[in-house]
Amino acid sequence: MNSWQRFCKYYLELHDLEISFDISRMRFDEEFFSKMSPQVSKALLDMESLEKGAIANPDENRLVGHYWLRAPELSPDSNLTQEIIASIKQVKEFCSNIHSGKISGEKSKKFERVLLIGIGGSALGPQLVSDALGSSEDKLEITFVDNTDPDGIERVYQKVKGKLDTTLSVVVSKSGGTLETRNGMLELGARYKSEGLSFAKHAVAITCENSKLDQIAKEQKWLPAIYMWDWVGGRTSLFSPVGLVPAALQGIDIDSMLEGAKLMDVHTRSKEATKNPALLLSLMWHFAGSGKGLKDMVVLPYKDRLVLFSKYLQQLVMESLGKELDLDGNKVNQGIAVYGNKGSTDQHAYIQQLRDGLNNFFATFITVQEDITSSTSKLGATNFNNLQVEDGVTSGDYLSGFYQGTRSALYDNNRDSITISVKKLDGRSLGALIALFERAVSFYASFVNINAYHQPGVEAGKKAAGLVLTLQSKVQEVLKKDTCALKPEEIAAKINETSQVETIFLILEHLAANSAKIVKTSSGSPDQNTYLLTK
Amino acid sequence: MNSWQRFCKYYLELHDLEISFDISRMRFDEEFFSKMSPQVSKALLDMESLEKGAIANPDENRLVGHYWLRAPELSPDSNLTQEIIASIKQVKEFCSNIHSGKISGEKSKKFERVLLIGIGGSALGPQLVSDALGSSEDKLEITFVDNTDPDGIERVYQKVKGKLDTTLSVVVSKSGGTLETRNGMLELGARYKSEGLSFAKHAVAITCENSKLDQIAKEQKWLPAIYMWDWVGGRTSLFSPVGLVPAALQGIDIDSMLEGAKLMDVHTRSKEATKNPALLLSLMWHFAGSGKGLKDMVVLPYKDRLVLFSKYLQQLVMESLGKELDLDGNKVNQGIAVYGNKGSTDQHAYIQQLRDGLNNFFATFITVQEDITSSTSKLGATNFNNLQVEDGVTSGDYLSGFYQGTRSALYDNNRDSITISVKKLDGRSLGALIALFERAVSFYASFVNINAYHQPGVEAGKKAAGLVLTLQSKVQEVLKKDTCALKPEEIAAKINETSQVETIFLILEHLAANSAKIVKTSSGSPDQNTYLLTK
Repeated sequence: MNSWQRFCKYYLELHDLEISFDISRMRFDEEFFSKMSPQVSKALLDMESLEKGAIANPDENRLVGHYWLRAPELSPDSNLTQEIIASIKQVKEFCSNIHSGKISGEKSKKFERVLLIGIGGSALGPQLVSDALGSSEDKLEITFVDNTDPDGIERVYQKVKGKLDTTLSVVVSKSGGTLETRNGMLELGARYKSEGLSFAKHAVAITCENSKLDQIAKEQKWLPAIYMWDWVGGRTSLFSPVGLVPAALQGIDIDSMLEGAKLMDVHTRSKEATKNPALLLSLMWHFAGSGKGLKDMVVLPYKDRLVLFSKYLQQLVMESLGKELDLDGNKVNQGIAVYGNKGSTDQHAYIQQLRDGLNNFFATFITVQEDITSSTSKLGATNFNNLQVEDGVTSGDYLSGFYQGTRSALYDNNRDSITISVKKLDGRSLGALIALFERAVSFYASFVNINAYHQPGVEAGKKAAGLVLTLQSKVQEVLKKDTCALKPEEIAAKINETSQVETIFLILEHLAANSAKIVKTSSGSPDQNTYLLTK
Repeated sequence: MNSWQRFCKYYLELHDLEISFDISRMRFDEEFFSKMSPQVSKALLDMESLEKGAIANPDENRLVGHYWLRAPELSPDSNLTQEIIASIKQVKEFCSNIHSGKISGEKSKKFERVLLIGIGGSALGPQLVSDALGSSEDKLEITFVDNTDPDGIERVYQKVKGKLDTTLSVVVSKSGGTLETRNGMLELGARYKSEGLSFAKHAVAITCENSKLDQIAKEQKWLPAIYMWDWVGGRTSLFSPVGLVPAALQGIDIDSMLEGAKLMDVHTRSKEATKNPALLLSLMWHFAGSGKGLKDMVVLPYKDRLVLFSKYLQQLVMESLGKELDLDGNKVNQGIAVYGNKGSTDQHAYIQQLRDGLNNFFATFITVQEDITSSTSKLGATNFNNLQVEDGVTSGDYLSGFYQGTRSALYDNNRDSITISVKKLDGRSLGALIALFERAVSFYASFVNINAYHQPGVEAGKKAAGLVLTLQSKVQEVLKKDTCALKPEEIAAKINETSQVETIFLILEHLAANSAKIVKTSSGSPDQNTYLLTK
């Protein structure tokens, strides 16, 4: 079988979605699919029971319902079905009221822009959609506060300074307890106040009912909150209000996104692996890394608007699959590392290593056949659409040529790749792509027997951070009281935390850099540094 | 030795630069440094001869001179010294003339913004500097065209549409032969024309003298070109006009960047490994991946303004170290995979996998002690600098706490990390950080005996892309002539390229998606598709 025959044999085209899949440049052998068929059967059963409402996230004793968001009729409970339908309706009504000015700010001015305050699953999806589908003609412009960096927050604020009376703040936190988001909210709140405005009258929360955030929003009388559900994980919340509200506010057609996802779900219920694109992907991941993540996944979308897709997948894949224990409690340290930006730009960055260096990855190319997206062409860009940079050749032909060239060059040097090709980039195809990877992650998790829906490892870092802040306040107390310059170890002794002297040193360094009142002396070694708060 | 003692033992603080290094959380043993001392001696000698003007890039028979850019007096040739000094002067004069309006556009209006057209080494550095140090008060706003995606180019254009008479286009290509950049230039040229303007009168080239681009610029009478040298590689060109022109246009103090880099070079000439931060880093890379890149480098700057630093390092490290052959011609397939975005945001994305999943990486934390950068505070942000989100606790304390928490949580689970801490983020520290990694890359290349200064693997992809475009024009000829709907194999036969049928199919798919005149029929398998150009 030559490579063209192999290409045709495994080529999969979804005609309704106009998306095609090429796995011929992965070097699996003819027996691979049959060898994997027991795992495939298990994965299909797992998916079926998940979709029917099994507790697919056993650690947290939760349903996993993100697939119902685009097909509410499939949810196992008719109340849920109604809730999901009502939620989509509520999102649309809310956004339409914002657009019409029926809901307006304190000074009764129509909202002109949105500040989304969220992090991780509450920001990456909306950022992706906004960048992939937005345009300068969007109904509302959207900006993101996605960290607890006060400098970063101020930088975002500078863009909207003096305009907060026409700025809607959307605070997104499923649990309502995410401290970065809480801080962003307080930082923005202070800025609304400084402009003589009430934050509450320009703020809406997207959160679970009765969460901490919901309580704050009620107490302070924000705009009525829009609820999501605890059976939707942050990284799979794009089709819940978390993703739908910002998209709809921007003016993006959320129905087409939901439709694309729903259609992809249908394809990815196929029991025939070679006809099921999510099985194809997950099988290729398994093949590439021997089911142990031995190869990194390099995601290369050849389309500027998809540059965030690799970052989005980095979260979806790594947070879902990067697990210490399998479902039986065995230590497995699973995962797949994901990185990438966009082609052909990355050709001039790290493709040198991909082609010549370490063969520790497989590439996932994403191409868009239509060179000018509808989001761009509606701006009237038609003059330049077919601009020829050489006789009969457009910039888009080059983009496509570079994709093909890189794919060949990698293959010729024994580096494998998958290509996913969408005909046009729009809400429908983006919805479908996201659904595709969500389901591929679910299948892969079944193959390797892990829980893809929790994130137990994140807690350790948060707890450790909490301890640091508790220590900080003790250190501050000592500094306030003491009149002598103290070494880290002396401070540690005063607060009975001698095992924490390194942390105390790091805290002192940070405090000293941010307060002119703290005098630091340094003589080479950290244990000899001294710190004094001038009174 | 407890962890605090180990911390103090290896802690390195550069007092002049206010940068510190912590390698205590890498689990090397006490003998590691002495074991590596032969490689360290060799690396120091290699660096010395490189700095003295040896042909450190033997494949291309070139000097490697980027370290002279910030210390022209060290270049081996006094003519070069004068050239570098003159170049910096020229950059400053040019930018000052742009700022004053002495150099203005066709309609004699002062330039208000810059469009930088470049890719890879000609874009990543300027993007990093712009994002790290810029502010809304910059002298000129800067936007980037860094791909041959016509949709992406149009999207950038929409932001400056109607304002090209006050827009300076800076076209950056060392060789002048980079096709993505050539395309960007042509695309923008057409848009200037559509606004009734001459591109030439708003364009300046940064390139090597007598390059293709230089020739075009001369023929078309652009603003006088600013030259760089063939002994500066794209990925290390930030201190050449490639990086200095856009930075200076933006209003960033390029002297402080140069000074920071120069000071870091001094530190990294130290023969004592534990006092030489670039040796520390490169040794840790060697330790982590056993000199074979077995661990990915995850770069986590805890500062929004440094989010592009990981992308910058991805290029610098991977393009430099990702090599097939060593200097003796042995096949080694070297490299280190690099990825990362920013903390604490990434905590909510993929840190789950870092802590719990595959232990296939080491982390490099970068922290900035001063919470509010000078670029931000000059905007008058002081009102909110010390905003307390809890009693005595700022958002910045949280950022620092999350860094510490993540570092501990990783370490406790046997994941190693390095921390680089800068007191404040400004031109000086950014210059120093860039110099640091440039030199660490040089040292590591010596350890593993590779040429860090060429990129032979990139050619293969470009060549393959060229073949695709040649094939495309043949395919287009057939479509133009033929009146029957043809299958890919039939077209391949007509142009005597039967071995290229897969490429021809991919070309046809792309052409069909972009021309309403091409009728495609599809019946399931690619080899049965037909294509017809309606006349």
